[in-house]
Amino acid sequence: MIKDKSVQCFLDELAGKAPTPGGGSAAAIMGAMGAALVSMVCNLTIGKKNYEAVDADMQALLLRAEALRADLAGMVRADVAAFDQVMAAYGLPKDSDAEKATRSTAIQAALKRATEVPLQCARASAQAIALSREVAEKGNRNVISDAGVAVMAAYAALKSAALNVYVNTNAIRDPDFVGQCVSELETLLAANENAVDEIYALVKQRL
Amino acid sequence: MIKDKSVQCFLDELAGKAPTPGGGSAAAIMGAMGAALVSMVCNLTIGKKNYEAVDADMQALLLRAEALRADLAGMVRADVAAFDQVMAAYGLPKDSDAEKATRSTAIQAALKRATEVPLQCARASAQAIALSREVAEKGNRNVISDAGVAVMAAYAALKSAALNVYVNTNAIRDPDFVGQCVSELETLLAANENAVDEIYALVKQRL
Repeated sequence: MIKDKSVQCFLDELAGKAPTPGGGSAAAIMGAMGAALVSMVCNLTIGKKNYEAVDADMQALLLRAEALRADLAGMVRADVAAFDQVMAAYGLPKDSDAEKATRSTAIQAALKRATEVPLQCARASAQAIALSREVAEKGNRNVISDAGVAVMAAYAALKSAALNVYVNTNAIRDPDFVGQCVSELETLLAANENAVDEIYALVKQRL
Repeated sequence: MIKDKSVQCFLDELAGKAPTPGGGSAAAIMGAMGAALVSMVCNLTIGKKNYEAVDADMQALLLRAEALRADLAGMVRADVAAFDQVMAAYGLPKDSDAEKATRSTAIQAALKRATEVPLQCARASAQAIALSREVAEKGNRNVISDAGVAVMAAYAALKSAALNVYVNTNAIRDPDFVGQCVSELETLLAANENAVDEIYALVKQRL
């Protein structure tokens, strides 16, 4: 599994000729990095002098960030599996009409799965952005820059996942499914563009 | 070294109580991911039918992206070393006036180094953004979403490195040095905000 490989090996494979790991895996890892940095700020705020008032909030936030990090790290594997399924479906035989129909159904099902995975990543990344706002507001000022890195990592994950939703929906012939996915995605994007700027500005102000 | 650890272990350490690896390392890794994805698009464009006209460009771009990736991956280690040096300087004895002066000089020198590393990361990330534009314009459309992930990763790296420049310059008592660093940084930021939006839009259009 990718997450058991070294960071250097992951970067080498990302750069290489194989189509996976690619942008989908990179998006999930950036999201997980965002969640991890939220956890780091929580960990370096909990139990510190002058931060007693937010201790309980930081404890609760840490649990949420760690659950989100596990979800996002798991999406690396899900992204590769979804991609492999799409490739396998395109590789099905297409000699007879029956084969063509079976292949087309398999491709459409695989593309839907390959859309759901990045949409899930986009949702989780949006949650990581929301958590980064809470640590940016309340976290230990000595490590507040890490809250700013968290929001940028989570934002990169969201925008990256969005591209993977778009690219897969382009080939799906189910307008209801596509409409629903794109509408949810664009709501997430619209809600977070300004949020990211605000959180980054807040961090800069608290540096 | 961090880059020899597994991705999962890196994420665990990022989330943990230790101050390193933190946002500085995360910035360098996101920059390296951006450069790696530029390389990936090059690798999946070189030698492909319909892309003969850009083959030489993609070969040249691949070399630049791989050099940049190596630089950025190396900055993970430099960031941790610079942080350790700052901590070591703050830990120096401060009983006598002579000790206080030595300590203060050591802190200032360490903070300058801890500013130069993220400034270098910001420069390299800006270069990764420029390379992502070239793959976004000319790369294989089948993997063009990866060029969009590249630009978002590099942008997250730039904005993250910027916070680390700001936080360290805040404590440096050399206005010329601070002025020069902040001025270079803000030029990089200003030049790239719009560039990132343009490159992302270009990718979306070519999906």
